Amino acid sequence: SRSINLAVIPGDGIGQEVVAQGLKVLRAVLPQDVKLETKEYDLGAQRWHRTGETLPDAELEALKGHDAILLGAIGDPSVPSGVLERGLLLKLRFAFDHFINLRPSKLFPNTATPLAGRPDIDFVVVREGTEGPYTGNGGSLRTGTPAEVATEVSVNTAYGVERVVRDAFERANARPRKKLTLVHKNNVLVYAGHMWKNIFDRVAAEYPEVTTDYLHVDAATIFFVTQPERFDVIVTDNLFGDILTDLAAAVTGGIGLAASGNINPTGTFPSMFEPVHGSAPDIAGQGKADPTATVLSVALLLRHLGHETEAARIEDAVSADLAERDGGASRTTEQIGDALAVRVAD
Amino acid sequence: SRSINLAVIPGDGIGQEVVAQGLKVLRAVLPQDVKLETKEYDLGAQRWHRTGETLPDAELEALKGHDAILLGAIGDPSVPSGVLERGLLLKLRFAFDHFINLRPSKLFPNTATPLAGRPDIDFVVVREGTEGPYTGNGGSLRTGTPAEVATEVSVNTAYGVERVVRDAFERANARPRKKLTLVHKNNVLVYAGHMWKNIFDRVAAEYPEVTTDYLHVDAATIFFVTQPERFDVIVTDNLFGDILTDLAAAVTGGIGLAASGNINPTGTFPSMFEPVHGSAPDIAGQGKADPTATVLSVALLLRHLGHETEAARIEDAVSADLAERDGGASRTTEQIGDALAVRVAD
Ligand SMILES: CC(C)[C@H](C(=O)O)[C@@H](O)C(=O)O
Ligand SMILES: CC(C)[C@H](C(=O)O)[C@@H](O)C(=O)O
Repeated sequence: SRSINLAVIPGDGIGQEVVAQGLKVLRAVLPQDVKLETKEYDLGAQRWHRTGETLPDAELEALKGHDAILLGAIGDPSVPSGVLERGLLLKLRFAFDHFINLRPSKLFPNTATPLAGRPDIDFVVVREGTEGPYTGNGGSLRTGTPAEVATEVSVNTAYGVERVVRDAFERANARPRKKLTLVHKNNVLVYAGHMWKNIFDRVAAEYPEVTTDYLHVDAATIFFVTQPERFDVIVTDNLFGDILTDLAAAVTGGIGLAASGNINPTGTFPSMFEPVHGSAPDIAGQGKADPTATVLSVALLLRHLGHETEAARIEDAVSADLAERDGGASRTTEQIGDALAVRVAD
Repeated sequence: SRSINLAVIPGDGIGQEVVAQGLKVLRAVLPQDVKLETKEYDLGAQRWHRTGETLPDAELEALKGHDAILLGAIGDPSVPSGVLERGLLLKLRFAFDHFINLRPSKLFPNTATPLAGRPDIDFVVVREGTEGPYTGNGGSLRTGTPAEVATEVSVNTAYGVERVVRDAFERANARPRKKLTLVHKNNVLVYAGHMWKNIFDRVAAEYPEVTTDYLHVDAATIFFVTQPERFDVIVTDNLFGDILTDLAAAVTGGIGLAASGNINPTGTFPSMFEPVHGSAPDIAGQGKADPTATVLSVALLLRHLGHETEAARIEDAVSADLAERDGGASRTTEQIGDALAVRVAD
């Protein structure tokens, strides 16, 4: 489309800084005739301290009117753990039915990895985004007493599993290696695990060209560090995906480079793009945060909205920028943003 | 005590081979005056195929009479996923109230690690063993239909959490660095997560010399590969512990070296010692399996039964053996067992 009506939620900590650079690169890459409108939403720790609100209904309604959402980071040590995560970030993912949590992992040339031998890493994790242990089901009884019982219920539906599995098969089928790995823990979580595996096997029959594989989540973490090149597309549950994608980020140059999209492929609700990293309050406001993960999230946003050329331009710019980083003096958040903006505008 | 009445469950795949070497080293290390009696239990895939049984009541009763259990590995592709895990391995852990699942991780000199720079890794994971998502709570409704709903319930009690947290503080307090890290996901799993954190903080007040830390499980995986030296003792939930200890094994020379103890510290029931690795059916019967993880599990067993000198002898033997492995021709399961038996007998 020739216009983008973007909601921006900078959020907390380094969120503000990295989002500013993401928007800068977005403006630089867009052709003149694509009109970009942005509206900033003041949500996060400060808002909560001021008003006690995390995501009021009116703002949830207003967000629905946008083509997409760019989010920086949510969370601050001054807010009890879970309040903003559940009340804002997860509320958005659930309200807007972001059932595809897309997290590409690629080891760019010249970037640091803790792995010896610099394996060839280029895979995508398709993390389910609206079910599993993230539903908020559960509770606590006799809270705070020695007789307390606390439960967490992982809720999984055939409806929810099939749609993410299908999406993952489509993505695998569109990639050169055409390989899809299901990660779960079906030897222990037998109810959910068997449902995932059965649906996976059934859908697999429709994609004869896609090679499939199954790994327990514990074994998968081993391969992430010993043989990450074996992965092409991974489909997994919400919690396993959370864990695996942080590990994936760590082995591919760190959380400063990991992008993500919370996608509603039906288009019923706006999709939301955010770096995988958190708000990093310890370095907030110092110009130390790497905005690259946010910039790469902008690329995912553009691809989602049909601007493939611009998405690829951003990814190429990041690649080129990273290739030249080695040995150079460390740059500020803004300098990295500027460098990327110059490259994509070329 | 001057006698050990040991139950042996070789189990499936490489379980048989590695247990034979574990017993060989155990016999070699024990002083003449300690009487070792062993009784083998035929449990695992073959038994299940033959009789449909995983762990009959009579055998569960008989196992109670032993001082400890040595287990090889459980699981075979010919058995539906979960049948042996839940019906045998987890049944033992739950029936014998193995609430401490102890998993030390140490990067021995000269062993291969996928991590560049060979960080100094020496930590212990104290994994809760009788609660969390491992309880088998949950179920599936309209199974196999497009309307299926499958749940998995993580059950956590103050009783269960406090006892494992206390054990971990004791262990941390007894180590030179005295550092304990709680790993959970209390920004999402708020009911269980807050209970864990509150109990952890309350018990921490009784251990002023122990430095404490909290990490979300996703962030913990990052530090496992970027800064593993930051960990001393980790206490965590059953599922997070499962995932983290495979990753820990991977960065400390592989699953062939990772030992574990399923411990009931009260002594009401026998504790069970097993390598972290699985049955590896692909290499079973070929003499390719590394028995070191089983041998190190025997060391944990001896320590649990009060034979500290012999436990340390085994660990020193493994250290020395690993130090000399580098560059040598690869040895068979039996050759490694023989080498370790010779060393501990010296
Ligand atoms: C902040 C937290 C709720 C979130 C999650 O667990 O999904 C984060 O870790 C992520 O991966 O986006
Ligand atoms: C085999 C399986 C049930 C077991 C577990 O999940 O605990 C294993 O992975 C382990 O870590 O001991």
